[in-house]
Parts: sequence; C-alpha cells; structure tokens
Amino acid sequence: MAAESGKSGALGKSGAVAELMEALGPEMVEIDPPERFHGDWSGSPRARPRAVVLPRSTPDVATALRICHGRRQSVVPQGGLTGLAGGATPRPGDIALSMDRFAGIEAIDEAGGTMTVRAGTILAVAQDAAEAAGWELGWDLGARGSCQIGGNLATNAGGNRVIRYGMARDNVLGLEAVLADGTVVSSLRPMLKNNTGYDLRHLFCGSEGTLGVITRAVLRLHPRPRTRLTALVALASYEAVVGLLRHAQRNVGGVTAYEAMWRFHYEYVSGELGGVRPLAGGAAFYVILEVSGDDPDHDEQRLEAMLALAVGERLVTDATLAGSTAQARAMWAIREAEPIDRLPDVVNFDVSLPIADIGDFAADCEAALRERWPAAYIFNYGHIGDSNLHLSLSIGPASDADLHAIDDLVYDIVRRYRGSVSAEHGIGMLKRDYLAYSRSPAELAVMRAIKTTLDPNGILNPGKLFPAEATHTVLG
Amino acid sequence: MAAESGKSGALGKSGAVAELMEALGPEMVEIDPPERFHGDWSGSPRARPRAVVLPRSTPDVATALRICHGRRQSVVPQGGLTGLAGGATPRPGDIALSMDRFAGIEAIDEAGGTMTVRAGTILAVAQDAAEAAGWELGWDLGARGSCQIGGNLATNAGGNRVIRYGMARDNVLGLEAVLADGTVVSSLRPMLKNNTGYDLRHLFCGSEGTLGVITRAVLRLHPRPRTRLTALVALASYEAVVGLLRHAQRNVGGVTAYEAMWRFHYEYVSGELGGVRPLAGGAAFYVILEVSGDDPDHDEQRLEAMLALAVGERLVTDATLAGSTAQARAMWAIREAEPIDRLPDVVNFDVSLPIADIGDFAADCEAALRERWPAAYIFNYGHIGDSNLHLSLSIGPASDADLHAIDDLVYDIVRRYRGSVSAEHGIGMLKRDYLAYSRSPAELAVMRAIKTTLDPNGILNPGKLFPAEATHTVLG
Repeated sequence: MAAESGKSGALGKSGAVAELMEALGPEMVEIDPPERFHGDWSGSPRARPRAVVLPRSTPDVATALRICHGRRQSVVPQGGLTGLAGGATPRPGDIALSMDRFAGIEAIDEAGGTMTVRAGTILAVAQDAAEAAGWELGWDLGARGSCQIGGNLATNAGGNRVIRYGMARDNVLGLEAVLADGTVVSSLRPMLKNNTGYDLRHLFCGSEGTLGVITRAVLRLHPRPRTRLTALVALASYEAVVGLLRHAQRNVGGVTAYEAMWRFHYEYVSGELGGVRPLAGGAAFYVILEVSGDDPDHDEQRLEAMLALAVGERLVTDATLAGSTAQARAMWAIREAEPIDRLPDVVNFDVSLPIADIGDFAADCEAALRERWPAAYIFNYGHIGDSNLHLSLSIGPASDADLHAIDDLVYDIVRRYRGSVSAEHGIGMLKRDYLAYSRSPAELAVMRAIKTTLDPNGILNPGKLFPAEATHTVLG
Repeated sequence: MAAESGKSGALGKSGAVAELMEALGPEMVEIDPPERFHGDWSGSPRARPRAVVLPRSTPDVATALRICHGRRQSVVPQGGLTGLAGGATPRPGDIALSMDRFAGIEAIDEAGGTMTVRAGTILAVAQDAAEAAGWELGWDLGARGSCQIGGNLATNAGGNRVIRYGMARDNVLGLEAVLADGTVVSSLRPMLKNNTGYDLRHLFCGSEGTLGVITRAVLRLHPRPRTRLTALVALASYEAVVGLLRHAQRNVGGVTAYEAMWRFHYEYVSGELGGVRPLAGGAAFYVILEVSGDDPDHDEQRLEAMLALAVGERLVTDATLAGSTAQARAMWAIREAEPIDRLPDVVNFDVSLPIADIGDFAADCEAALRERWPAAYIFNYGHIGDSNLHLSLSIGPASDADLHAIDDLVYDIVRRYRGSVSAEHGIGMLKRDYLAYSRSPAELAVMRAIKTTLDPNGILNPGKLFPAEATHTVLG
C-alpha cells in the first residue's frame, strides 16, 4: 500500500485510503482486509478489497462516502456477507464498507410494535429482541445467525414468512440511508401510514447498495402467534398443490409457510437423511404446511378438520401432523435439503412465476435439461405459496461452459413464462446478464436514470445489478 | 379556442390541443370540459382545464403525453376525482387526462388470486369482481362507488382495511405507467416475489401523478374471511385504547378494523343521528373493533371471551357486539360522522403519529385550539390501529385567515411530534406548503431530483405535491 501512505493530496483514487484514514482514524480503516471481507456466500470470484472501512455511526458512513465520491473510488457495501448473488463481493480495487461495527437495537416501542435498529445488527439478535418484547420480526432466513438487517433490507430478503408478512421491504416503516455523495437521507418515522410524497424506502430496499447505504431502519413488528402447527401432506398433482393452498387459506387462515417438494426431492433427500420418512414416498408432490394461530384450544382440531376435508375432496392423498418440535424439524430438514449440496457442482436457481404456471415450468425445465444431460439430478422445491421455485441440479462434474449452458437454458424458459430470474436472492454479479429477461428496456432505462441521478460518479457497488457496460446510460 | 383550431405547427403550448385532436381523433379530446373535470372533492379552487383528453388505451395515453411533453403543456391526470387534497384539480391552462374511458377488468387469475385491471375501473366494480371470483380486494374507501383504481394507486389510498392488508401500494404486484415523454414502463407481472432491481411500483404509487400516469395494474387479492364481527367498546383512557388493540391482536387475531372515537365525537354524532346509542355516553373513548375470521363455529365466542377478559382486566369499561348487519352499520355511522359536515366551515385533518403519542397529540391540539377558539367543535377519531388520526373541527363561520391559522396551529404540533401531515389523503395542492414539516431537506432534494429525471419538462401535475417554486431544483 506504499502508493497510499502519503497525506491525501490532489483528488484521485490513489489517495482515497489515506484520506479515509485521516478522516476516520486508522482503527476504522483496515488496509489488509481479512478473508471475511473478500466475498459472500455466492461462490462468485472472491477478491481482496483495497481496504475495508468499518464505520461506527451514520456520520462515519457519510464521511467515508463523501471522500470516495470526491475521488471516484468505488465502494462495495457489506453486511453479513451471506448473499447468494455476489452483491457484496468486492472487485479488485473496490473499497469495502462494512456495517459490522454499526450494530445494535436503538429502541423498541412495545406499545406501538416498532423497533429502531442499526444496519449491522445480526438478524437473530433483532428477532430475539422482538420476542423478548412480546412481538415477532416479520422475516426469517436460514442465515439468521450471520446476516445483518442492513443487508436484508438492501437485498429485500425473502425467506420463510413472506406468505404472512411480505418481503423484508414490507416490514420497513422508516429508513435512513446515505447517498453516494455522503448526504444522509433520513426518514426514521414509525407510522404505518405516511402519504407525503415519493416513497424512498422502497427505492433503497432491494437496490443492492447501488443507490445508497442503508444505515438504520424502523421496523414494524407483528403480534406473536400463540400456536404454530406443522403438517406434511402428500398430493397427486400440481393443481392439487395450488388447490390445497387456497383451501387452507380459506378454512383455517394463518398460513405462515407453504413449501412444496416434488417427488424426487422428497425421496432423495429423506433417503440421504437416513430414510426415516414422515410420509411414504411415491406421491407426486409433498407440501409442508405451517399454520399459526391464537387459539390453543381449537387450532389443532381445526387444522385436522381442514386436512380431513381435503382428503375427503381428494385434494390430498395423505397427511401427518408434527406431534413435537423434533418432528417438525425433521419435516423442515427434508425441505432444507442439505444433502443436495454434497452432489458435485450443484447449480441453484431462485425464480418466481405465476403460481399456477410453476408445475408446467418445472416440467419444461426438467425435460429440456434431461434432453441434454439425461443423468442429471434435478430437484424442484420452494416457497410455492409465494410463487417462488428453487430449482437445484447437478449434472455431475461440470465445466464453466456447462454451467453457463444450464443458466441459459433455465433462464430462457423463465423468460418464456414471463417469470422473474430472481425471486428473493437479488441480481448481484451472478444474474446481471439475465436482468433483461425479467425487466423491459423501459424499466432498465428508468433504473439507469435513477442510478445516474443519485450516484453520478457511479461509485456505489459498480458491476452489480446492472450489466457493467451500461451502468451509466441515461434515460431517453 | 380559436387560437388552437389550426393544424399543429411549430412546437408550442398553443398548438397542443390541436395536435392532440389530430393524433387521437376529436372524440377523445373534449375542448369544453364539463363541470366534472373542473376539480375534485377537496374543496380546493376549481378551474376549467383547456381540454380534457379521454384515452381508451395505454398507447392513447402515451400519445397524449408525448405531445404534451414536446409542447411543454402541463397535464393533470384525473381518476374518479374523489381526492381530498386537490391533487386532481386542474389549474387554468392545464390539460386534464381522464381515465374514465380506460376502464375494466382484463383478467382474474382465480388460482393465483390476482386481478389485472385498467386505471379507470371504479373501485366498487373491482371489489365486486374479486368477490364474485371468491376473493377480496385489499382496500376499501367510502368513495368506492366513484373513485378509480388508478387514482387509488397514484395517491396510495388507505381506508378501512389497512390494518390487515396495508395501503393500496401494498396490494400491487405489477404496474404499468406512462412517463411524461410517453415512454410506457410496463411490469405487469403477477408474482409475489420479484427481486430484480429497483422497485418502480412504489415510485409511481403515491406520487400523485407527478412521475407518470398509471394505466394498468396487477393486484394481489386476498382470501375472503368467512366471518366478520363488529363490536363497540367503551374505554377510560387512551392507554387502554392502545392496550386493547394489542390485547385483541394477541387473543383473537384477524383484526380488520380498529377505529377510535373520543368522547365528544361519540356523544355529539350519536346525538345528531337520533340519540340511539349502542353504548351509553360518558366514557372517555369508544372503539369499533372489527374481527374477521374463518371459523363460524367459534369466532363469536372467542371475541366475546376476549372482550370479557378485557373487561376483567379493566382495559374496557363496557362492550357490545353487533347482532346484525343493521347494528354494525349503526356503529359505523357514528364513526363516519356525517353530521359533522353540517357544521359551518369544517376543517378536516388526516395526520399520523406514533400510535402511543396520539392521545397526547389530540389533547395538545385541543388545548391550543381552545385557547384561541374556546367554543370550537373539536372531533377526534380515526384509524387508530394504523396510527392515523382524523381531527375535524369547526370554529363557526371562518375566514380564510382563520382557516390558515388553524392549519398552521395543527401542523406545527404534528411537526413537533414528528408526525406526518398526511396519513392517507396525500399532499396535492392543499398540503404542499406543509410537506417540509414531515420530510427532511435531503428527502425533498432526492424527490426533486427524481422528478426532474423522469419529467424534465415538468409537465406532469405541476403545482401539486411540491411547493410550486421549488419543483425543479436539482439535487446537491
């Protein structure tokens, strides 16, 4: 780092690190960033950033960005680094801006059911604090012990509660973000209703750090349900999977998870997990249905009655209710499918489609994949209640050309079905070449125009979300 | 209109009407617009627009805007004209763009629970269509027989179901809008999850026609609850009002309305309505609690048990359950408070505050108002479950100076409490001078920068939302 050891002189990228150290103090700027900061969980190519800045406050973030803006120094914002699209992975030459040290819950309003939280707060910490206050946070992810609230909001995380509480963005009442030039845009208001002009919360949420760095948020909490029941059901057709969802929503309400597994997924994963199956194999589909309610005396019998009715109407061929937390966990373990990751060169897709089309889509993908790779392992499963399919596959050891061909094949079918190439994981680096499959040229032009307006020097997370060559095209 | 009867010649405002007539045909351009198009329900000063354009399709809207953009002709988008902030009221010289003829439901996906609808569709028509398909639309307003879906979305309407389904914006899966220059930005996708870049839906929703004209939307529908129960309860303190809300949400779930009335409101309005009171007067607060559920066998007894518990815990001093639709309507009639409108020069506020602060806020406002107008009629009521207070008052016959002084007094207190000057009605013309009470300078700068980016000629609804003199200030 010899080139950067001098005092900050004329504006220019080379002096950015020195100027940051001078302005923020050396303990906030790590010039030999450890492995943690070299990339996220996505598997996209890792790189050591020029430095990692570790602010402790919103003004620190503002100072860091103002300096980088002035020097046209690219910045990659980082949260818990659990993203699956490469959105927080540095490119060589980037400075990483990590929220690790700007963590903690600032306030919980127990009467109002809101929480004010810093971006670096670990999701599980915020969840526990909400529960201790008698409430529940609106989203939950497998990465809850590592991911951070700021990253969850910047990527508009999904997860297991979307069917009940929406995506992460839907749980945000107020937001504070810092623009590329260091301007702090703060609207940390806790009201459910606030119709006073453009909604900037939703612009920053889901923009993957390309429009601003989220620093704090006021989150809406939800009353904690008193009962949570988990059932596993077997079904004969995809139409029945959609039919049971509506049947459940109409007859018991409170559906908090609706996760489908296609037959091969269920049989393979439960086999690998030891072969103990809550329901016998052989059915075309399996669904984990979770229902949350407030009536400990009646909720279980209502769920049983609803399932009995569904069996009577031949919507469901078999069903079992988890009798304990351990049994529920065993059902979820099949859905979470850890054994799939042991296969060679697994490719995971996270797509969404109109819910009625997912069955046909999965069949079309499988047929097209099998034509080229007859022995592929193909797993279909996902948050079907949210229109979200996770398709995972392994063709055995795969070359880069194979992986690219698989992407092209699946995303082409997504485009044909007018689906989304990213339901919940975002675009990052991994999907930016497919963004135009799901967004029209006019939408992309508006996105680029907004990007140029808010980040004229293009310092915020370049190379992410947009195809690189077109980041700065203006509208019209 | 002699100046505009020639062929469109050089670009310029004066030829806009002629060019519109030539491009769209004379039947789509009304050069002597009837009264309907001169203003909305807000009471802001009405004006005859230069013409009203009545497109029948999205391409018609695009053509109209392209022409107005080229000629820098200001355009006021109009829906059902039921707005309460003057957002759809023309200024002299504006051309009105009415969605009246671009109406109708294009598709309902019964399996997926979505509806594709044109902007000019009357809310009640969309509600009825959803119900006929076995679903429920996510919002409901008093103006349901006149207001239009496009206007509801452009103003992010609230209403009576926000506590359950959110604001209008929260029910939008896909949106089509036309930019000022005629570019059609279409993302009519029906998926619940779609994390592919910036969320443009939320930029157009709530922007009151200043960023684009909403033409079509894909709406999320909700399973229709099977039971709907209405209770009226009396409470001794505002703390009890907040406490009962949480008690109800935890013990019965499915709270679909939570509407509070302060004592004077309840006593005055029920007196004017004939004096038949479901509960005796004299309590500090009254709440209409509506609970929707799916269990016809148990929902009523659960609500009764919850209320009995609340009485036992002294949260509630008295309670009664509506035994019929007529009884429920009688309770709602007190809340809807038609008799207030018969008082002279009534001023209505629509503000939101942190829910725990609303009691103190209302007391502060009342004290400040009484100090100046000791004999004022002051009514506090509203969607308290959504943090939304409607304050109405009459000081008797009032001058313009009085009305302005009332606004200043109340909005100053809103600002002190860090509340919102508009919970659900929007800013329009009536509140634009108070916008800065609820949005920071940095927020306003970002809003203005986005406005300038998407509508560089400033043709879309000028004079609304932003203070007029500052509409085109750029960021930084």
